[in-house]
Amino acid sequence: MSVNLVKNAVGRMVPIEINGKSAVPFQGVGAYKPTGRIHAPEISSCANYPEDGNKLVESLKAALIRAGLSDGMTISTHHHFRNGDVIAVEIFKIAQELGVKDLVWFPSAAFPCHEAIIEQLENGTIHHIEGSLNGPLGEFVSQGKMRGTGVLRSHGGRYQAIQDGDVEIDIAVIAAPTADSFGNANGIDGSSACGLLGFALADSEYADKVIVVTDNLVPFPCIPWQIQGNHVDFVVEVDQVGIPERIVSGTTKVTKSPDRLHIAELTAQFCEEAGLIKDGFSFQAGAGGTSLSIGNFFGEIMRRKGIKARFARGGSNKYLVEMLEEGLIEYILDGQTFDLDGIRSMRENPLHVNTSPFTSYNYHGKGNFAGLIDIVILGATEVDVNFNANVVTHSDGKLLHGIGGWQNCLFGKNVILPIPLFRNRIPVVCDEVTTICGPGELIDIIVTERGIAINPRRTDLMETMKGSNLPIKTIQELKEEAERICGIPVKPNFSDEIISAVNWVDGTVIDVVRKVKN
Amino acid sequence: MSVNLVKNAVGRMVPIEINGKSAVPFQGVGAYKPTGRIHAPEISSCANYPEDGNKLVESLKAALIRAGLSDGMTISTHHHFRNGDVIAVEIFKIAQELGVKDLVWFPSAAFPCHEAIIEQLENGTIHHIEGSLNGPLGEFVSQGKMRGTGVLRSHGGRYQAIQDGDVEIDIAVIAAPTADSFGNANGIDGSSACGLLGFALADSEYADKVIVVTDNLVPFPCIPWQIQGNHVDFVVEVDQVGIPERIVSGTTKVTKSPDRLHIAELTAQFCEEAGLIKDGFSFQAGAGGTSLSIGNFFGEIMRRKGIKARFARGGSNKYLVEMLEEGLIEYILDGQTFDLDGIRSMRENPLHVNTSPFTSYNYHGKGNFAGLIDIVILGATEVDVNFNANVVTHSDGKLLHGIGGWQNCLFGKNVILPIPLFRNRIPVVCDEVTTICGPGELIDIIVTERGIAINPRRTDLMETMKGSNLPIKTIQELKEEAERICGIPVKPNFSDEIISAVNWVDGTVIDVVRKVKN
Repeated sequence: MSVNLVKNAVGRMVPIEINGKSAVPFQGVGAYKPTGRIHAPEISSCANYPEDGNKLVESLKAALIRAGLSDGMTISTHHHFRNGDVIAVEIFKIAQELGVKDLVWFPSAAFPCHEAIIEQLENGTIHHIEGSLNGPLGEFVSQGKMRGTGVLRSHGGRYQAIQDGDVEIDIAVIAAPTADSFGNANGIDGSSACGLLGFALADSEYADKVIVVTDNLVPFPCIPWQIQGNHVDFVVEVDQVGIPERIVSGTTKVTKSPDRLHIAELTAQFCEEAGLIKDGFSFQAGAGGTSLSIGNFFGEIMRRKGIKARFARGGSNKYLVEMLEEGLIEYILDGQTFDLDGIRSMRENPLHVNTSPFTSYNYHGKGNFAGLIDIVILGATEVDVNFNANVVTHSDGKLLHGIGGWQNCLFGKNVILPIPLFRNRIPVVCDEVTTICGPGELIDIIVTERGIAINPRRTDLMETMKGSNLPIKTIQELKEEAERICGIPVKPNFSDEIISAVNWVDGTVIDVVRKVKN
Repeated sequence: MSVNLVKNAVGRMVPIEINGKSAVPFQGVGAYKPTGRIHAPEISSCANYPEDGNKLVESLKAALIRAGLSDGMTISTHHHFRNGDVIAVEIFKIAQELGVKDLVWFPSAAFPCHEAIIEQLENGTIHHIEGSLNGPLGEFVSQGKMRGTGVLRSHGGRYQAIQDGDVEIDIAVIAAPTADSFGNANGIDGSSACGLLGFALADSEYADKVIVVTDNLVPFPCIPWQIQGNHVDFVVEVDQVGIPERIVSGTTKVTKSPDRLHIAELTAQFCEEAGLIKDGFSFQAGAGGTSLSIGNFFGEIMRRKGIKARFARGGSNKYLVEMLEEGLIEYILDGQTFDLDGIRSMRENPLHVNTSPFTSYNYHGKGNFAGLIDIVILGATEVDVNFNANVVTHSDGKLLHGIGGWQNCLFGKNVILPIPLFRNRIPVVCDEVTTICGPGELIDIIVTERGIAINPRRTDLMETMKGSNLPIKTIQELKEEAERICGIPVKPNFSDEIISAVNWVDGTVIDVVRKVKN
C-alpha cells in the first residue's frame, strides 16, 4: 500500500485514502463537523414483495443469489453469537462455490470461530475485512497477508459508518434465533437465543438487501421484533443459526487473581470516596474478571448505603442480572448479552432493556447514551503518560483485539481504566502507546495494583481526593514504577506497511496498525 | 388554483402540480414504481448536543425559536390525543405571536379541538394544512377558504410521504405523556397517557428539528422509548400535554341500532360461512359501533368453535382488550388506542404490542403488515357499483373526514365494508362515488342491512357462498334497491376549484375534492 500520510491531531501519521476511498485524519475530540446527509437506501415498494408477506426462500444460497451476490460486494454479519457464529463461514463458502470474488466482509466483530474464512481471504473470494480482527484473523492480517486494508471501528463507529454511507452494505445476513416469514426477528426466543440483535440494526436499516436466517420460524407476528421485517428481503430457515453456549467466553467469571481483586477493590473505593456512588447513579462495567469484581464491590457499597443505581449498561451477565433482580439496579440497558443468564433476563424481565449502537453509541446522532453514564469501567492493553490508551494491539505490535464499544464509552462522565501495571513483565503504563485508540483527554482515572493516577485535567477529582488514603500517584510515577520492575520495554518492530486503520467514533482516522516484521 | 389536469387510472381528473410541487396521477394498484432514494436527514454530531444529554429548554416558544421557526416552514404534530390535543393550537398561537407567516401544518390528523387554528389560517400564519380535514377545518376548507391545497393521505401514505421526501418536515413537535430530558418518550405512562406515539415516528426520524413536549418528565431512561431521544433536539416541560379523556369519541360504543346490529351479525355470519374464521386467523375491526359489534360476534364464534385468533389489529378499545385478556386473541398489534382500556392494556400487557405506520402501513417498504390480515372491516361514506369507495366526503360533497389507515387496510386478504344501504334517505351504494379513496379491485364484500354483495373478482368467495342462505345480491341490485327507497340521489354542486388532493398509498393522486357551491 503506497499512500500519502498526514499527521493527525494526536500526532499519528495516517493515510488520506484507504481501500480506494478518501479518509479524514482525526481532528480532535468533537472537532470534526460532518457535512452532508445520511445514507439513503433506494425507495422500495410493497408491489415488489409477496402480497401475503411470506418472504421464505429455500436456502441461504438461494437467498444470496436472489440478493444478487456478485464480485466486489460488501457483505455484513453480526456477532451476537460471539464465538458461536456459524453463518459467516457458511456465507463465504457459498460465495466461493459460486465463484464470486473480491468481497468485503463487514462483520460487527470477528471471533476465533471465523478462522476458516482465512481460506477465502487467501483464494480471492474475500478482498478484505472491515471489522475487529482479533484471534487468528488478527494474526493473519498482522503478517500483512490480507489484500486490502482493515478498518477497525467501534460499535458506535460502525453504526456511524453505515448511517453516513462511509460503508455501503450490499447484502446484510442476519442470524436470528427467532423470526417469522415476514422477516421480523429477535434474539431472545428459540433454542439458539442470543439475547438481542442490536448489532444488526444498522445493517437492517441501510443495507441494499437484507436476509434473515433463522432456526426457529414462528407464525407472524414474531414478538418482539428487534429487527423489523419491513426492512427484510428474504427469510431462510436453517437447522442451526448459532451456538449460544459459545457466547460465553473465559472472561465472564469474577477474577480470582489477588492482584486483579486488589485493583477491583481500589476502583470501588475510589468511586465511593470520590462520591460517584450515590442514589440514582449509573455505571457500565462490562465483562472481564476485574470488571465483574468491581460490579460486585459496587453492589456491596449500594447495599451498605441503602441506595440503588438508576441503570447499568450491559454487556449483561449473571452478576449484573442478580443485581437487577435484587433491586440494586432499576434498569439494565443492554447492548450485548454475555451469558445465558443475560439472555434469560432480557427475555423475562421488562426492566432488562434492549439497546442498539444507535441509541447507545452513534456519535453522529442527536446525542447518544454514552455521555449519560456516571462511571465507566474499561480495559486497555496499554496506557501512556498522556492517558492515551490502546485496546487493539499488544505491546508486540500484533493486532489481536477489536475496539468494541470501548471508544464510545470514553464519553462517560468518569472513565476509569483498572489495569495491571504490567503483564508478563511488560509495562502496561508506558511512554507512548503502540496504537492510540482513545485520546487521553477522555480518560479520567487509571487504577493499578500499585497506585491510582487521576488525569490532571480532572481538577475536580484531584481536589476531592486530596487527603485520601488511597495510593494516588501521577501517571509518570506509575510508568516509572513499571519500568523499575520490568525495565524499559522494547518497541515492536514494524514495517512501513499499513495493515489496518483505526477509526475514531466520528469516522476519522486516529491511528494505523502496521505489519509486524518477523 | 389554475392547474393542468390529467385523467388518472380510475378516470378522475387530477392536477400534475399541487402547492407548487409536481404530482403523479394514480396509475393503478401496484403500478407506480418509485425511483430514487428515501429522504436523508443531515448528519448530526454529538458534538453539537449537550454532553450530559440534557436537552431541556424552558418553554415551547424557546424551543421553536431555537429550532429556527421561520416563514414557510412545515410543522408537524401527531394525533394520538385525538380530540384532546392541546399542543397544535399552542404552536400556531406562538407562531402568530412571533409574526411567522405561511407555515404548513402537517398533522397526522386534525380534530374539532383544532378549530381555533382557523384564526391562523385566516391571518396568514398558516398557508395550508396537509392532513385530514374533518370537522370545522373540513367545513372551512370545503368553502374554499384555505390558501393552499389540502393533501389527504392515509396513515401509511403520510409515512411514505415523509420517508420519500415528498414532505420535508422542518420542525416536528411531539406531545409525549412521558419523556426524559434526553428526549426518549412514550405514550403509556403519566397522567396524560395516550397509549403510543407511532404516528410521530416518521416525524422523529426524518424531521430536521424535533421537539418533545411532556408533562411527565422522568429521570433517564424513559422506558419504553417509543420515540428515541437520539432523534430529538429539544425537550420542553409543560403543565398538560393532552387530555386523554378526549381520546374517546362517540364511536367507541357497541351499536344499539337494530339495523347496524343486523349488519354486524350478517358480516360475522358471512365470515363464518366463508371459512374465514379459523384457528390462527387475524382481523382488524377498528372503532365505530358496527365494527365493535362485529368484534363481539367474532368472539362468540371463536368461543363456540374453541379457536383463537393469532392477532387482531387495533385501534384498540375495551372490547378488543377483553378478548385479549380472555385469550381469544394472542396479540393485539396496535397503532392507536381508542380508549383508556386500550392504554392500560398496552402499558400492562406485553401481548398488546406497539406498532407504527412504518410496520403496518408504509407502502414504500419491503412489505408491510396490512397484507397479512385475513379479515378487514372498514367503513365508507359511499360505495359505487364498481366497488370503489369514498371515506372523505359526504354525498353533499363536503370534506368532513380523514382517510386514517383506511386505504392501507384495503390490502388485507378479505376487505369487508359493512355499511347501511342509505343514510338520512341518501343512498350509500351509488352509481359513482363523489370521491374515490379506494379502487374497487381491493374491496371484496359489501354488507348492508338489505343484502351482501361480493366483488365478482372474488370468484373464490362467489363459489364458496353459492347456496348460502345469506342475502347475497349483486352490487347493482343493492344500488337499485337504495334508489327505489330513496330516489336517485342529487349530485353535489361543485365549482372547479380544487380544495384538496386525495393521495393513494404510493403518493400518487387518486382523486381531488372541489369547492362546494353554496
